[in-house]
Amino acid sequence: MFLPEIAKLGHVALVTPDLEKSLWFFRDVIGLEVTEEVDETIYLRAWGDFEHHSLSLTAGEKGYVDHIGWRTKRPEDVEGFARLLTKAGTEVKWIEAETERGQGVAIRFQLPSQHTFELYYDVEKPVVEEGRRSVLKNQTYKSWNRGVSPRRFDHVNIHTSTDASLTYEFLENQLGFKMREFLKDDDNQTIAGWMSVTPLVHDVAVLSKPQAPTPARLHHIAYWSDNMQDILRAADILKEQGINFIGPGKHGISQAMYLYVMDPGSGCRVELFSGGYLIFEPDWDPIEWTMEERSVGNTYWGESVQDKPENNITIEA
Amino acid sequence: MFLPEIAKLGHVALVTPDLEKSLWFFRDVIGLEVTEEVDETIYLRAWGDFEHHSLSLTAGEKGYVDHIGWRTKRPEDVEGFARLLTKAGTEVKWIEAETERGQGVAIRFQLPSQHTFELYYDVEKPVVEEGRRSVLKNQTYKSWNRGVSPRRFDHVNIHTSTDASLTYEFLENQLGFKMREFLKDDDNQTIAGWMSVTPLVHDVAVLSKPQAPTPARLHHIAYWSDNMQDILRAADILKEQGINFIGPGKHGISQAMYLYVMDPGSGCRVELFSGGYLIFEPDWDPIEWTMEERSVGNTYWGESVQDKPENNITIEA
Amino acid sequence: MFLPEIAKLGHVALVTPDLEKSLWFFRDVIGLEVTEEVDETIYLRAWGDFEHHSLSLTAGEKGYVDHIGWRTKRPEDVEGFARLLTKAGTEVKWIEAETERGQGVAIRFQLPSQHTFELYYDVEKPVVEEGRRSVLKNQTYKSWNRGVSPRRFDHVNIHTSTDASLTYEFLENQLGFKMREFLKDDDNQTIAGWMSVTPLVHDVAVLSKPQAPTPARLHHIAYWSDNMQDILRAADILKEQGINFIGPGKHGISQAMYLYVMDPGSGCRVELFSGGYLIFEPDWDPIEWTMEERSVGNTYWGESVQDKPENNITIEA
Amino acid sequence: MFLPEIAKLGHVALVTPDLEKSLWFFRDVIGLEVTEEVDETIYLRAWGDFEHHSLSLTAGEKGYVDHIGWRTKRPEDVEGFARLLTKAGTEVKWIEAETERGQGVAIRFQLPSQHTFELYYDVEKPVVEEGRRSVLKNQTYKSWNRGVSPRRFDHVNIHTSTDASLTYEFLENQLGFKMREFLKDDDNQTIAGWMSVTPLVHDVAVLSKPQAPTPARLHHIAYWSDNMQDILRAADILKEQGINFIGPGKHGISQAMYLYVMDPGSGCRVELFSGGYLIFEPDWDPIEWTMEERSVGNTYWGESVQDKPENNITIEA
Repeated sequence: MFLPEIAKLGHVALVTPDLEKSLWFFRDVIGLEVTEEVDETIYLRAWGDFEHHSLSLTAGEKGYVDHIGWRTKRPEDVEGFARLLTKAGTEVKWIEAETERGQGVAIRFQLPSQHTFELYYDVEKPVVEEGRRSVLKNQTYKSWNRGVSPRRFDHVNIHTSTDASLTYEFLENQLGFKMREFLKDDDNQTIAGWMSVTPLVHDVAVLSKPQAPTPARLHHIAYWSDNMQDILRAADILKEQGINFIGPGKHGISQAMYLYVMDPGSGCRVELFSGGYLIFEPDWDPIEWTMEERSVGNTYWGESVQDKPENNITIEA
Repeated sequence: MFLPEIAKLGHVALVTPDLEKSLWFFRDVIGLEVTEEVDETIYLRAWGDFEHHSLSLTAGEKGYVDHIGWRTKRPEDVEGFARLLTKAGTEVKWIEAETERGQGVAIRFQLPSQHTFELYYDVEKPVVEEGRRSVLKNQTYKSWNRGVSPRRFDHVNIHTSTDASLTYEFLENQLGFKMREFLKDDDNQTIAGWMSVTPLVHDVAVLSKPQAPTPARLHHIAYWSDNMQDILRAADILKEQGINFIGPGKHGISQAMYLYVMDPGSGCRVELFSGGYLIFEPDWDPIEWTMEERSVGNTYWGESVQDKPENNITIEA
Repeated sequence: MFLPEIAKLGHVALVTPDLEKSLWFFRDVIGLEVTEEVDETIYLRAWGDFEHHSLSLTAGEKGYVDHIGWRTKRPEDVEGFARLLTKAGTEVKWIEAETERGQGVAIRFQLPSQHTFELYYDVEKPVVEEGRRSVLKNQTYKSWNRGVSPRRFDHVNIHTSTDASLTYEFLENQLGFKMREFLKDDDNQTIAGWMSVTPLVHDVAVLSKPQAPTPARLHHIAYWSDNMQDILRAADILKEQGINFIGPGKHGISQAMYLYVMDPGSGCRVELFSGGYLIFEPDWDPIEWTMEERSVGNTYWGESVQDKPENNITIEA
Repeated sequence: MFLPEIAKLGHVALVTPDLEKSLWFFRDVIGLEVTEEVDETIYLRAWGDFEHHSLSLTAGEKGYVDHIGWRTKRPEDVEGFARLLTKAGTEVKWIEAETERGQGVAIRFQLPSQHTFELYYDVEKPVVEEGRRSVLKNQTYKSWNRGVSPRRFDHVNIHTSTDASLTYEFLENQLGFKMREFLKDDDNQTIAGWMSVTPLVHDVAVLSKPQAPTPARLHHIAYWSDNMQDILRAADILKEQGINFIGPGKHGISQAMYLYVMDPGSGCRVELFSGGYLIFEPDWDPIEWTMEERSVGNTYWGESVQDKPENNITIEA
């Protein structure tokens, strides 16, 4: 049987109550590049991102994630997923081309966790104008142009107050994600799962948070830098801007070296990270972490996200 | 139609006229870990490799590559490839399980370039004994144990005196590789191709070298480190051991930051590198480099491999 | 008037109840080199230290610092200091040459804080045997030989329950130290001072700790590494050995990027650090930090030493 | 006898035929901060420099160094040096306060090599305005604000066609410099000397170049960065600006990891470097390098300055 496939995480569509501040944060502090500004939406990407955007900012009444976009492997996979999902009882909404600038026809639907995923194939890869374009043919923008300057968009971390097991199942069976690492509670329930369609340890992490204020929440989006030293440099840059953060530290789970910082405009948390590892093995045995091992899984070393109350703040997604 | 797939590069089987010196180089200087020593073959892997071995060393009369091993995506892909290749006129040889320690049944065949590839699926992932095992559940050995200490095996770079276009075609059509970047000569012939089955820019690079002493040659195998600083540290370590190398530098093609050093036992060159980029786009447009752009493609900055006569030495493969 | 001068911090003489464990920690984990073992004292130094030793380990009933050694600028300064100190009412004890291996005649005396300082000029700089000697003529040992592998000994941090102002005064007026940065409490009393005779921000830090169990305590000794990435690598190495630590983080005061780890043999804390800054200005205006600024002075970013109870453990000095 | 002393290298006064381009290079590419612009001279310094400026740019007909400024240890040392130098037959010229913005009264004189040195003590340390000022009390500007962003001015490297031995002697006997490392030719003549008044391996290097077009030349000025990774980042930044350079590499002499890049306005070469070592020993035995050892002294690893013809270009000084 032919199965449609997701190729990669594409972008997050973020709504912010303070567009100017969010733009300052993502462009001037994090150092993303603005691709285009159309109809009150600002499209951004990192210097090593290839698609039209990995983040969009739209003004709104509060900070929340409108949807999380994923690119399919083949053009026909969008319709393939529409068919499969509809058949499985998931409501699928078709989105016209150019609803989002640079992007072709897409579908949107909700995970059991109520997070909205978008699937598309067609997307522009705009060539950058002279002066901002990298001298390297395989790189989009000049690197190190401004602020932290991470290389590329990496993953999203979402929380849900619903039964997370339904979402793990949905991601595996409907969307083809593989579980890479997971955390079990003392009742043997998976309460956190790191899943991917790529060799990255995770394109998405889903955490069970029964006490979350609404069913679907975003904990953070993540941008990746080549070197751990780049994360330490980011720490200096953020402090010089008067912006606090959690980290640096290294997760046991995923082996990511991290810094967590919040966009003061939208409340969206950004993980700046380097390191991690790649999984090329086709028969990967998901790594199980018990509650006893949780603390080393969360914090191999460094400032722990666990001890910081601000780490519990999430935005609606 | 069902198509068998390759999941990843697995290992290189290296023959060396000075086993002791090669072992010193790969274990004590590069810092690989010995998995097992069986029947005069020593199996090694990096601390972040998961399979039984990414390199085997066997004593022989001269230094050469016996074969390059690749793991398939599914168990049935080994036979799937055997069928397809045979049908396409390629001679396929079946290799019994445990011919190579830790590995199941496999097939071997020659590329048009006369390099021997091996395909297998079953492979042991030995659990490491206490003391050498990492405290992290998702990592094989303790890191930073000895010498350069790279994280994982990455790619092979092979040369051929045969018509390279046949090999590019074979890799694409028979084995499912995608061209990621390539260099064209002034007659519009591709004379170097960087190809992969994974999001790595290349799992294998194939270079046309009409003057090569034998049809199939190995230019280098590559191990990857997390940080560019780790490569600079490697430079210090190598010099302290009285070992010369080329680099550090950064390739334009693949964006790899590199150091090239030769195993004094076998003559096998090793690239120690960090950086590079990942390709998740399903419709990647291969990056074309012309002869005019060749020098920046080869050396974005740093010590050029081009100027160094020792860079032309290859071993039979 | 001729004034004797101190050139630099030389070494710390550490007594440990578990010599074997301390040797394992300092040699195998931290990666110091053993210069000599004489009469039950083991002498160690970092690969970039030039004197005979920067640390000595001697077995004893408990972990404590016997003395802190400083090298004078000229041979005659040892006697010069003896005269000045005696005249100022400080009891000076002469130490015969070779009491400590490799070292000439010296004097010992107590600061007002009751810490024992030693001053000497003559000291051996043993040439290292082939194999361990660096290939660089300006470097003592091969670098990166084992464990963390810091470059050089840097400073000591001492605590006192006595009136610290007397010690600041003594260091300035009797020994020629300059105050570089200091912390004032709300009564305008200096409760921490970072002082040096060199362009380093501090060769010694003295902290007022009225509740300390004995008058003279050691908080830590510090070894310096060239790159911040080296400190992150140290974090991995320590965790793989099952050793906990505080950090990484960056102090506002001194700008040092740090990791604090304890020798499990003696209880002596070691700061592994990189960064910091140099003071060449002859009219340096000491940087004053108020209680309000204390937290950023202590922790510019990263895991704070302040929140960790284990940070309060000190050993007698 | 009372001897005046030099505390540190202060600044280089550079004349450039293309002020705009030099300003672009030093401010926008290297990332220095402009302190002030007065009377057609632009004063710059690095984010970690404390004095009013470490570089001044003045428009002129060609690129050359007007003088090299050094700060004395005590106010009275300026006159002390004037007296000593005059007595020794060196012509001393008094410079009025504020001839150079921010600087008090000074003297200027020529070394035997005909390089003009300036000695001063009084100098402003302007407090930076809010917004550009670092949040750290011990740091001048926010770091990582723009371009390469090195921490501080470090040293100068000068060439002379005169008998260099006279200049080594003058620097030692008249100015108090210590020889740290030196290169001897086969006739046992010192043809390169690395000398300092601080614990840095060199504040100034003097090279004998009998064929130099004029007696006094500048090879480069140097700015220092905290981490070797910062130098690799600089390489990326320079290439993205279309600027070529030599390196990265590591000198055996001084152990500096380097990149050499030329200001396209003035022709003044800048060394961007990290690493190196500090000499605190009062009885430092200068490291001698023979012609046989010269190549490892020049290039421990990496792209060699020796092979590059552009390395021979110097400007008048």
